[in-house]
Amino acid sequence: MNEIGLDDLPIRDDLRGRSPYGAPQLDVPVALNTNENPYPPSPRLAEALGRAVAAVAGGLNRYPDRDAVRLRAGLADYLGHGLDARRVWAANGSNEVLQQILQTFGGPGRTAMGFEPSYSMHPIISHVTGTTWLPVPRTRDFGIDVEAARIAIAVHQPHVVFLTSPNNPTGTALPLETVEAIAATAPGVVVVDEAYAEFRREGTPSALSLLPTHPRLIVTRTMSKAFAMAGTRVGYLAAHPAVVDALQLVRLPYHLSAVTQAVAGTALEFADELLGAVKQLRADRDALVDWLRANGFRVADSDANFVLFGEFADRTAVWQGMLDHGVLIREVGPPGWLRVTVGTPEELARFRTALLAVTGRG
Amino acid sequence: MNEIGLDDLPIRDDLRGRSPYGAPQLDVPVALNTNENPYPPSPRLAEALGRAVAAVAGGLNRYPDRDAVRLRAGLADYLGHGLDARRVWAANGSNEVLQQILQTFGGPGRTAMGFEPSYSMHPIISHVTGTTWLPVPRTRDFGIDVEAARIAIAVHQPHVVFLTSPNNPTGTALPLETVEAIAATAPGVVVVDEAYAEFRREGTPSALSLLPTHPRLIVTRTMSKAFAMAGTRVGYLAAHPAVVDALQLVRLPYHLSAVTQAVAGTALEFADELLGAVKQLRADRDALVDWLRANGFRVADSDANFVLFGEFADRTAVWQGMLDHGVLIREVGPPGWLRVTVGTPEELARFRTALLAVTGRG
Repeated sequence: MNEIGLDDLPIRDDLRGRSPYGAPQLDVPVALNTNENPYPPSPRLAEALGRAVAAVAGGLNRYPDRDAVRLRAGLADYLGHGLDARRVWAANGSNEVLQQILQTFGGPGRTAMGFEPSYSMHPIISHVTGTTWLPVPRTRDFGIDVEAARIAIAVHQPHVVFLTSPNNPTGTALPLETVEAIAATAPGVVVVDEAYAEFRREGTPSALSLLPTHPRLIVTRTMSKAFAMAGTRVGYLAAHPAVVDALQLVRLPYHLSAVTQAVAGTALEFADELLGAVKQLRADRDALVDWLRANGFRVADSDANFVLFGEFADRTAVWQGMLDHGVLIREVGPPGWLRVTVGTPEELARFRTALLAVTGRG
Repeated sequence: MNEIGLDDLPIRDDLRGRSPYGAPQLDVPVALNTNENPYPPSPRLAEALGRAVAAVAGGLNRYPDRDAVRLRAGLADYLGHGLDARRVWAANGSNEVLQQILQTFGGPGRTAMGFEPSYSMHPIISHVTGTTWLPVPRTRDFGIDVEAARIAIAVHQPHVVFLTSPNNPTGTALPLETVEAIAATAPGVVVVDEAYAEFRREGTPSALSLLPTHPRLIVTRTMSKAFAMAGTRVGYLAAHPAVVDALQLVRLPYHLSAVTQAVAGTALEFADELLGAVKQLRADRDALVDWLRANGFRVADSDANFVLFGEFADRTAVWQGMLDHGVLIREVGPPGWLRVTVGTPEELARFRTALLAVTGRG
C-alpha cells in the first residue's frame, strides 16, 4: 500500500480536522458513561431472542419487509395514545431516525436549531446532512426560556427544531407548554427527542399527547435505554402519517434487517419485564441525586437514567481520578460538570466511594 | 389528526414529486425480481444463527462494538488478497456503505459519475446526500468505452466515480484494464460496486487485486447475494486504511448492531456451505442464457445471478403477462429489456414456460 493518510484523501473540506464521535470503549469494572441500562435481558428473554432469530433464519435469503409493518404496529401499541403503524417509523437506532428526518426536512441550504447543552449527535448529524446548525443557549438551570426560543425561531426561521426531553446530558424535562409554544412558532418540523422518556418522574408529560393537534411534531424514542436493547439498535418515532410517508423518500430500502425486526418485536413482548427494571432505576436515580446533594455537590434535576453533577474547577482531573478507581463516567456537558449513568446498586456504591475519595470529601 | 398530506409538509423542494425506491413486495409463487439467492440457509445454519444471537442476547443492554472489529476481520479473511480489519468496513447493507462514501467524498457542491444503465441506488443515494449525479451512457453492449469515460472524467472532474462490476441490471463485468484506466484519470475516489462478484464467470477478475496500488479505490461487496443473507443487511467494503479512517467521520456511532455482527460472523463460518449454492446458480445462469438465446431472445452476457433479456416492443405487457402466470420479474434497465433473477431449477422451469406462453413463442 502507498503510505498515505486521511489528510491525503479528497474528503470534504468541512470534515477535515474533525474526530469521529464516540465515548472511549474502555474495559473497566464499572462503566457508567454511556447511559446504558445495567440490567441485562433475562435468560428467559435471551432464549426467546435466539428462538425468534432461528425462526426467521430460514428466510434470510430474502429481503426483509421493507416497511417493517409488524414491528411498527408493536411499537405503536406500546406507545399507546391511539397510535398505529402508519404513525410510527423505525430505523437502526434513533440516530438513523434523526438522520432520515434531517435528510427530508433539513439538508443543504436549510437550518436546524437546538438548545444547548444537549445531545451532541443533533449538531453532528445536522452537519453530515449539510444542515446548518443554530445553537441557542439553555437557561442556567438547563431549561428553555420560551420567549428567547420564540424570538430565535422568529429570527432564524429554522427548518427543524430539536427539543430534547428529558435532555441529555442534563436530565431536564420540558413542560408541555414549552413544547406547544415552540411548535406554534416554528415554521418547520419540531422534533422532541424522548430517548429517555420512560425514566421521567411521576407527573412529567410526554409530547406524544400533542401529536393529534400538531402535524409537524415528531417524537423520537429508542429501545436502547428503557428496553435495555442498546446492542440491538432500534430507534423509532411517532408522527403524523404524512411525516412517515415523507421519510420514505430518503430511507435506504430494506434498512431494517429481518433479524432486527424479529429481535425488537420479541423484546416488545417482554415489555413488562424490561420496564420493571426502569422503576428500580428511577428510584436509584432519585436516591443518587439526594446523596450527591447531601454531600455538597450541585445536581441538575433529572428525569433520565443519568445525573449531571458538579461543579469542579478541574473536571478532567475528577474524571481521571474516578477512572483510576475503576469507575468510568462521562466528561460531557457544561464546563465543570460531569455525567454519571444510574447503574446497579453495587456499581453506584463503588461510584459513591470513589467520588468521595477523589474529591476529598470522604 | 389534521387532514394534511405529504405535499403540505415542509420537505426539501428537491424531494417533491419523488417516489420511494423499491420493487413491489408482492406475494407471488415465483419471485425472481430482486436478485435474491433462492437457496435458504440450511437448518444447521439457522440453528447456529439462533444460538449465536442467544449467546450475545445477555449483553444486549450494552452498546455493540462500535468498530465491529471481529466481523471486519472475518470479512477480510474471506476476501483474501492480504486484507485485514483495518482495510475493511461494514454497515447495514451496501446501501449504507455507499451512503457513507458519498457523505465523506461527495455531498453538496460535489459530483458523482456513473455509467448507465446501472444500479439505480447510486444516483438516488447521491441525490439524498446532496451530490450532483453525472450519468455517462454505456456502450450498446452495456460495457464502458474507456476513452469516452476518460474524457468525461477529464471534463467533469467528478469527486466520486461508480463502476459496477458485474453491473446491475445488465450483468456486465468490467476488464481490470478499464478499472485501472479510469482510476488513473479520476481525481477523486473510484468505487467498484462488486455486489455480485461471487457469481462472475471463470476468468473474470475482481478489482480487489488493484487495491495495493490504488489508495483511492474502494471495492464494495454484500452478504445479501452470494451469502444468501439479504434479510441480514450486511454490506462491506475493502479499501486503503485511510479510507476506512475517513468514513469514521460520518458513520453513525454504533451503526451495526451486536445482533447483526453475531449473525454475519456466524454466516461467514458457513461460507463453504453458502458458496456451494453459488456454483449451482452460476451453472443455471449460463444454461438460462443459452436457453433464452436458443429461443430467439437477445441476452446480455451475465456475470451475475440475473439475466437481462429482450427486446420487447411492450415490455410492460410482458412483465404483466409473466405476473399473471405467477412469475414476478423486474421491469428495469434499458427500454425493451427485462431482468430475471436466477432462481431454483423449479422456479426457472416456471419462468421458461410462462415466457413462451406470454411471448407466443411456445
